[in-house]
Amino acid sequence: MKPLDIERQSFEIIARELGGRKPDPEVDLVVRRVIHTTADFDYFDNLVFSPHAVPALQAAIREGCPIVTDTTMAMAGINKRILARFGSQVHCFIGDEEVAREAKTRGLTRSWVSMEKAAQTLGGCVFAIGNAPTALFAISELVRAGKLRPRMVIGVPVGFVNVVEAKEEILSLDIPHIVARGRKGGSNVAAAIVNAALYQMVKREE
Amino acid sequence: MKPLDIERQSFEIIARELGGRKPDPEVDLVVRRVIHTTADFDYFDNLVFSPHAVPALQAAIREGCPIVTDTTMAMAGINKRILARFGSQVHCFIGDEEVAREAKTRGLTRSWVSMEKAAQTLGGCVFAIGNAPTALFAISELVRAGKLRPRMVIGVPVGFVNVVEAKEEILSLDIPHIVARGRKGGSNVAAAIVNAALYQMVKREE
Repeated sequence: MKPLDIERQSFEIIARELGGRKPDPEVDLVVRRVIHTTADFDYFDNLVFSPHAVPALQAAIREGCPIVTDTTMAMAGINKRILARFGSQVHCFIGDEEVAREAKTRGLTRSWVSMEKAAQTLGGCVFAIGNAPTALFAISELVRAGKLRPRMVIGVPVGFVNVVEAKEEILSLDIPHIVARGRKGGSNVAAAIVNAALYQMVKREE
Repeated sequence: MKPLDIERQSFEIIARELGGRKPDPEVDLVVRRVIHTTADFDYFDNLVFSPHAVPALQAAIREGCPIVTDTTMAMAGINKRILARFGSQVHCFIGDEEVAREAKTRGLTRSWVSMEKAAQTLGGCVFAIGNAPTALFAISELVRAGKLRPRMVIGVPVGFVNVVEAKEEILSLDIPHIVARGRKGGSNVAAAIVNAALYQMVKREE
């Protein structure tokens, strides 16, 4: 069986096992791709979308809006070949030497400073955050200070400390968002959400 | 709070929430790191270890044994800086042009052919498989044909089609393994298992 056939069959199994629980058609392929990526049906309930978040994400990509991740793992997981067709690129500043130096000097996490650097160099891009709650807190501070208007914040860090709070902080702002409420998420989930939007744009699946 | 303090606190929360369920000390930090990576306590039950699998993995790394992943995402997630201290490296052949050509010619998945290439070029290395069931089936076929003796197979693909079967196939072989039984897993889980072994080797945490 070919990988794309397996994927199609997997999406059918997920729809079947969700039973009567049908995601809104606009977000259906995102929800099912996250479940496909994790084999975890909790995401049916966890994922929270601002109004028309998926079309908003797709519009940003179609305009070539850059995507910023907090980890190289999320960057690795995003389909950069398809993204390039729309003139968009993924950036991750976590390994940046200047970011490391500045984080040390200012006593902040590298994740925090990497978000400031993204805001400075790329402006209102798409943020795909699967790991660091401090990345979400940095985005929030920049938004509240009027220094950043993100096109989209995918806020899906995973973890046990400050993670729930960081996501609720994003949900409290008036910005386009896709958030996995609660503890669950991950770099794989962040990448899956971007890829779901991309594959729908090129009609890779149903 | 510093990232390492957050991590320590997270590991304590996980131990507390596991309550009376205590992982065997030898595998404790692996089990808890996977839960930390996914916020999913199912891994307490899902993870299956061959006898002394964690010390075996650590011995392989200490000898500089290479690690092969099926995805660039798992490769991105593994701590390559610490790995390098032991003279070990991560390899991933999924994007290899020769692999792509051969997969097309032979009508196999790139994941399958990438495992053959790993076996040919690196021999009995550590396999960290978080995505492709066909990678596990390829490893199994090579083992059964007497062409490969892996030092360790971390078999944690995620998914709904052929995934459970591929993991059971690995469990049926007499090779050192760490397997996430059932549908769950992922590139993040594969990387977390390697990192847990590494961090214990350098005593990064408790």
